[in-house]
Amino acid sequence: MALSQVQALVFDVFGTVVDWRTSVIAEAEALGRAQGVKADWAAFADEWRVDGYLGGMAKIRNGEAPWAIVDDLHRRKLVELLDKYGVHGLAETKVDDFNRVWHRLGPWPDSVAGLTRLKRKFIISSLSNGNVSLLTNMAKNAGLPWDCVIGCDLFKAYKPMPAAYQGTARLLNLRPEQVMLVAAHHDDLEAAQAQGFRTAFVARPTEYGPGRGPDTPLAGAGNDRFDFAATDFLDLAGQLGA
Amino acid sequence: MALSQVQALVFDVFGTVVDWRTSVIAEAEALGRAQGVKADWAAFADEWRVDGYLGGMAKIRNGEAPWAIVDDLHRRKLVELLDKYGVHGLAETKVDDFNRVWHRLGPWPDSVAGLTRLKRKFIISSLSNGNVSLLTNMAKNAGLPWDCVIGCDLFKAYKPMPAAYQGTARLLNLRPEQVMLVAAHHDDLEAAQAQGFRTAFVARPTEYGPGRGPDTPLAGAGNDRFDFAATDFLDLAGQLGA
Repeated sequence: MALSQVQALVFDVFGTVVDWRTSVIAEAEALGRAQGVKADWAAFADEWRVDGYLGGMAKIRNGEAPWAIVDDLHRRKLVELLDKYGVHGLAETKVDDFNRVWHRLGPWPDSVAGLTRLKRKFIISSLSNGNVSLLTNMAKNAGLPWDCVIGCDLFKAYKPMPAAYQGTARLLNLRPEQVMLVAAHHDDLEAAQAQGFRTAFVARPTEYGPGRGPDTPLAGAGNDRFDFAATDFLDLAGQLGA
Repeated sequence: MALSQVQALVFDVFGTVVDWRTSVIAEAEALGRAQGVKADWAAFADEWRVDGYLGGMAKIRNGEAPWAIVDDLHRRKLVELLDKYGVHGLAETKVDDFNRVWHRLGPWPDSVAGLTRLKRKFIISSLSNGNVSLLTNMAKNAGLPWDCVIGCDLFKAYKPMPAAYQGTARLLNLRPEQVMLVAAHHDDLEAAQAQGFRTAFVARPTEYGPGRGPDTPLAGAGNDRFDFAATDFLDLAGQLGA
């Protein structure tokens, strides 16, 4: 493998770098307590993620809905979910603030240390469907040491659309084979690979809760398709000599 | 002044954050020594800057030339200048590498310490006519601690065109009055002000060599038009309570 060519590592963020579910549940529980509402906040988090974010993007990719940034997809779904889960009459500014929980997601335990090591040897950038402002705030809050912040609002094309990967290589002024995507999701990695990127799978077995991680376990499950498969960012740094 | 609203500081880079002239002269002198060529490398640097970069962008803004990133503007002019200054027969890969001197520019002595202080209180981003890849490499090399890297290739509009400032506020998801441009150049600051940005002038009196800084001295020269006027980034950090 001509991996000596790789100059930049670009990272999927939600689920790969940050543990969105734990963070969203914690803030939703706090909101519930403050509002005197009891509900299944884990289900709330999953519904927000799957229907609001993944579903919202799918409609845009399919041409059923016009372009909107992830902050707006989250906001629309949030209004519906607050009603469904029994939180009524929240001030607009408080809804706005709660919507920004996605700007305050906590990293996985290895993320900051792993990125810091990888940054010594490679350019490191986000390559997220999140918008640049969300990713910038998240990085500042979580201490993610990006060299560059790339979000799909720069391309108005959500992963796994080819334009997201092509646009990233162009912005970095690199050939596709000089860029490696690091992600916990097979569909993202396959799409990057189809555009000529190198790929590294990192297992995040608890992304959707205990026993509900996507595309795991590490061994088997077809991970030998990718250039690397790692248990976390520190393992990846070790494998890459960083 | 409603400066408590300001959430992000965006910085002009060439001349404001980095001392392009000293860096380019040093690398050109080294190239000259290696090639056995004597020439006025300060004049070479100035010509590259004024005709290649400023002149190249002006043609694009005027519609006389199609969009091109700054790396390409620099490269075209470099070929002409190497010939003019007597450097002949340089391999293409060496020309490419020398062209990336703009990725390796050194910061002014106060830049890294000042940015580090300002970053504690504000989102800090480049807002440069340089392309994102150039700015990313420069930041990595010089230790510029940006939260976000914004270059005008994201908008295909060079400052002082309104689209560059409007696009920056939109990407940061902020209103114009929540963003302050920090720059050593009046034309940039005036254009940002016209789009509703807050403005901070920082004097860089030696940008074009001793006694040849633009838009100086600090006192007078109309700097009271701007929200702040500072001698350097540490002075600015002090004035902003950062």
